[in-house]
This record gives sequence, structure tokens and C-alpha cells, in this order.
Amino acid sequence: MKIIFTFQPKEEFISELKNSFQEVEFLFYKKIKEAEKELPEAEVIVTMGEDLTDFHIEKSKKCKWIMVTSAGLEKMPFKAIKKRGILVTNARGIHRIPMAEFTIGLMLQHAKQLQAVWKQEKDSVWSRRLPTSELHEASLLILGAGAIGGEIARLGKAFHMKVTGVNSSGTPAKHFDSMFTLKTFQTELGNADYILSVLPSTEKTKHLLQVEHFEQMKDTAVFINIGRGDLVEESVLLEVSEKKLIQHMYLDVFDKEPLPKDHPFWENEGITVTPHLSSITKKYMPRALEIFKKNVTTYRNNSENYINVIDAERGY
Amino acid sequence: MKIIFTFQPKEEFISELKNSFQEVEFLFYKKIKEAEKELPEAEVIVTMGEDLTDFHIEKSKKCKWIMVTSAGLEKMPFKAIKKRGILVTNARGIHRIPMAEFTIGLMLQHAKQLQAVWKQEKDSVWSRRLPTSELHEASLLILGAGAIGGEIARLGKAFHMKVTGVNSSGTPAKHFDSMFTLKTFQTELGNADYILSVLPSTEKTKHLLQVEHFEQMKDTAVFINIGRGDLVEESVLLEVSEKKLIQHMYLDVFDKEPLPKDHPFWENEGITVTPHLSSITKKYMPRALEIFKKNVTTYRNNSENYINVIDAERGY
Repeated sequence: MKIIFTFQPKEEFISELKNSFQEVEFLFYKKIKEAEKELPEAEVIVTMGEDLTDFHIEKSKKCKWIMVTSAGLEKMPFKAIKKRGILVTNARGIHRIPMAEFTIGLMLQHAKQLQAVWKQEKDSVWSRRLPTSELHEASLLILGAGAIGGEIARLGKAFHMKVTGVNSSGTPAKHFDSMFTLKTFQTELGNADYILSVLPSTEKTKHLLQVEHFEQMKDTAVFINIGRGDLVEESVLLEVSEKKLIQHMYLDVFDKEPLPKDHPFWENEGITVTPHLSSITKKYMPRALEIFKKNVTTYRNNSENYINVIDAERGY
Repeated sequence: MKIIFTFQPKEEFISELKNSFQEVEFLFYKKIKEAEKELPEAEVIVTMGEDLTDFHIEKSKKCKWIMVTSAGLEKMPFKAIKKRGILVTNARGIHRIPMAEFTIGLMLQHAKQLQAVWKQEKDSVWSRRLPTSELHEASLLILGAGAIGGEIARLGKAFHMKVTGVNSSGTPAKHFDSMFTLKTFQTELGNADYILSVLPSTEKTKHLLQVEHFEQMKDTAVFINIGRGDLVEESVLLEVSEKKLIQHMYLDVFDKEPLPKDHPFWENEGITVTPHLSSITKKYMPRALEIFKKNVTTYRNNSENYINVIDAERGY
């Protein structure tokens, strides 16, 4: 059987795959264009998820399975895929650990005032008079209580934080002391020391937070957005900072990325910009390929226990 | 009964104490000198632990209990105290939470390269090419596996780190995957990504780590010292940095504090200086007074269940 990659993994991953599945013929191409001539022979296509079109699906006559080594599926030609009944799996879940570590790291460096500490250090200043705090017994409100939010909640509880969450149904979830919905969470805003969003971009979440929401927060509150930039309009964030409604905002996602060099967020004292870093990790490809390898075994065994099967109808 | 403080707590704590124990006469003095005239009448003395001398013990004819609202007992006149059979308790344990949070915060900001991120941010630079890593599955070696080390181990396990420890006996402890002694831990140095010391200063720990120990560490290793400055001679630390034997050192404790303005550590690229911050927390006095209040109740009830009783013979 032939498995075609439309991107070039590192040599170590290629060796690992060839060693693990010696009976499989792996073909690696730098881009889909180069892979086209082999598509008619491919049983499996491995893609980053942004290159396949109806044309490629049609060409891939023997294709039975497409593995997407990312979590993003917005550009997949699902209509053609569904028509052909091709199995799709993705690398859902691999953002959980890096995003949770990044978030806890941001909260701890805020509590310990490490930005101020590093500034002091640069100036050879020994001063212990910093407004430090603890995560211990602080309140964390997580907008988006899915796999990533749940992992952040788990770590928050390890630090003995009070953790509340927001999901679509308000159904209780492990590691959350209580759960709210997008309609009921406003009452909880005034209790939280840290308000974190990992919400995806949907019709319901777009421009969800308005100035009035920030007005309800503590003036010592910290807002962190590692979800999607369109959760809050830029004008709202600037007004919140201008009026000093809360203590600080850490923004990792933006309407337009990269954030333009002359954007007012960069120099705004109430806002810290991070360049969409939360999910970045050296372990991305190892984790994605780990899922892939397990699914290859499943495929070879004619089994049904695939990890992360995507419903081509729904698109997720 | 009279309880004398040789320091002045904040007004809120004074009110809390007076409300909690209305039958007790509390007297608050800014320093021991001002308290001297009342010492003969005091049943209980509350001190930060650095002001009492043999003279004060002799003057305090009625004293039955001394509460030290810190963990440090090096300056206590234990000989005189023992002779008089005065009970001593301290605030041992209140460093556990802030020191553990500080340590995990340092490790996370290192893994996520936040110093570099803040530098980029200052220059309005959007770059995602940073050598970030994860705590997940990284190895943490904790020199000093007591209450503080144990709390750091607990949090390390929450991040799914491999956690090994060093204590005097090598006896296994909760949250540690394995335990070594001061004589056997060298074999573990080469396995650790983070080497953390919370060791106290004793004859056995003074100048414990030599250049050869750092030579055994990974060249990507991170060394953190929140214990005592005399664990490693300054010349050793400078040589380790000069030879780039490990990736980075975070030092929170020093031979001489404050670290002098012209000290070479400040500008050393391999060393980050923090001003003995690890145990600083706004919750210090609330936690110390919480212990004190419980012990006052014990004292009033003629019970024996004191928290943190100190053996005047051993001095801890």
C-alpha cells in the first residue's frame, strides 16, 4: 500500500515511520503539486489540512483515508470527501498540553510579577517590593470548557484555585467547581481573578465580550485570550485599557495576524501581546505522528478503532 | 492574660485578634526595646524571631510561650528558653505555597521563553521562532525533599514531569518517582532537565555543588537555587556560566544579600538574578497569624495540640 505525504516531515520521523511499517510504501512530497502524479495510487493521504481540493479528491481514486496532521479543518473539501466515503482523521487534542502550560505560565509570571523582576534585573536593581500574589485560592473563569479548558482547569485545581467554566450546555465537567453557559456566565465575571478564553470563533462567540462585561470584572482582574481574536473587538480592548477597568490583558490571538508593527496594542501598558504562541511546541509533529501511527495500525488490521474520526457532514 | 507583640502587625490583623480573643489583653510594640517594660507581665511573646536575647528571657518572668512568626530560629536564645521551660512555636510551613508557585513559575517562563517574548514585545516584534519547550515529561531533580520540595514535586507531577528527590535518608516520599541521598544523587544529575535546590545551609550542604557536578548535567539543563546561597561558591557558578556547562541558572539566594550592584552575576548572560523573592507573599502574615490563633486557642484550653512546637534542645 502507498501512503503519500503532501509535506516533508523531519528525517527522524520518516525513519521512524519506515521502521514501524516496513511493508508500507511511504512517499513524501514538499507540496501537493509535486504529489499529484502519485495521487491515483495512494490509499492514504497525509496532509497539514490546507492543500486538498475537489480536484485532488477526484484524482485520488484509491484513497480510503485522509490523515490531517493539524486540528484545523476549515479548508477541507468535505463535500467531495463525503461523496467518496473517505475516512478523515485529524490531530485533535495535541494543543491541550502546550496551551495549558502556556496559560498557567502566563498566570504565574503575572502573579509573581516576573516582567517587573526581569526589568529590575536588567538594571541591576535588588528590590523585593513588588505587588506579587498567588494562584492559591485565586479564582479562574475559563470561557470554553473543552479539552484545552479542561486541562487548564485540572492544573488550576492543582494550584488550589477556584475554577469555574463556561460551555454551551452548562453541563458540569471534571476539574470545574461550577459551570455556566454563554448566557449565564456574566454573573460570574465579578468573582474571577483570572478570566481566560479558549473559545473558538463561532456566530455565538464573535464579539461576545463587550465593555460592559469588563466593567463587571474586578479592577484587579486579568484577562487572557488564547482562543480567537474576534471574541472581543479591538476597540473594546482599547477602551478597557484606557479606562483601566481591569489590571491587565494578555492577548495571544488577534483579528489580523501577525499583529501589524504599528498596532496600538504593542505599546499599550494595559496589554501584553504574545505572537500566537500558546500552542507552539517542539512536540507537535511527534504527537501528530503518534496518532497517525496508531491509526495506520488500525487501518492495517481492518479495525474500526480510529483516533479522532471526523464527521465529513459536520466538518468536525 | 497579656500577649505582647514585639512588632506591629497591620490594623486588620490587630482587629481580627482582638475580636477573636476578647478576653485577652494584646499589646503591640514596634520593637523589643519599647516592649521591655511590659515583658515581666507577659504570658505570651510574639516575635519575628530576631530580637530576643537572654536578657529579655530573664525579664519575662511570667512567660510560658513564645510564638515566632517566621521560620528562621537561628537567633533565638534557646539555652535560656530551655532552662525556663518556655514553649516555642513558629510559623514553619508558610513558605511552602509561595516557594512552590515561584519555582514552577520560573520553570514555565523558562520553558516558554517568556524573557525573550517580553523583549520581542518591547520592540513590537512578532516572531514565533523561539526555542520553547514543555514541562510535560521533562525531568526535575529536587535537592531537599522536605515540605517545600514535596509541594514542588506535587505540582511537577501535575505537569507530568519525572520528579526525583534528594533527602538525608533516601527514604521514598509522596510525589517523588525516586529518592537519592546527598551521597548518591550525583548519578542522577545527567538525567535532569531542571535541577532545583531548596536545601538549607548545613555543614553537609555548604559548597556541596562543585564544577564537576555541573559537568555531569545535560548542556540543556537549568539550575534553580531558592535554598541557600552557600550551596555553590560564586566562583563555581561563574565558571559554570563561562564554560556554558548548562543552559541557564536562576539564583534567588546569595552569599551576601542584597547582591551588590556591581556584582558580576547581574550582567552574566547565563545567570538570572532574583532578589530572594521565592517566599514573598501577601499571605505571609495571615498564614502566620492563623497558626498563632490556633495555638492561642490551644493555650487557652490548656490543651497540648500546638502547631509547630520547637525543640529548644535541637533548635528546630
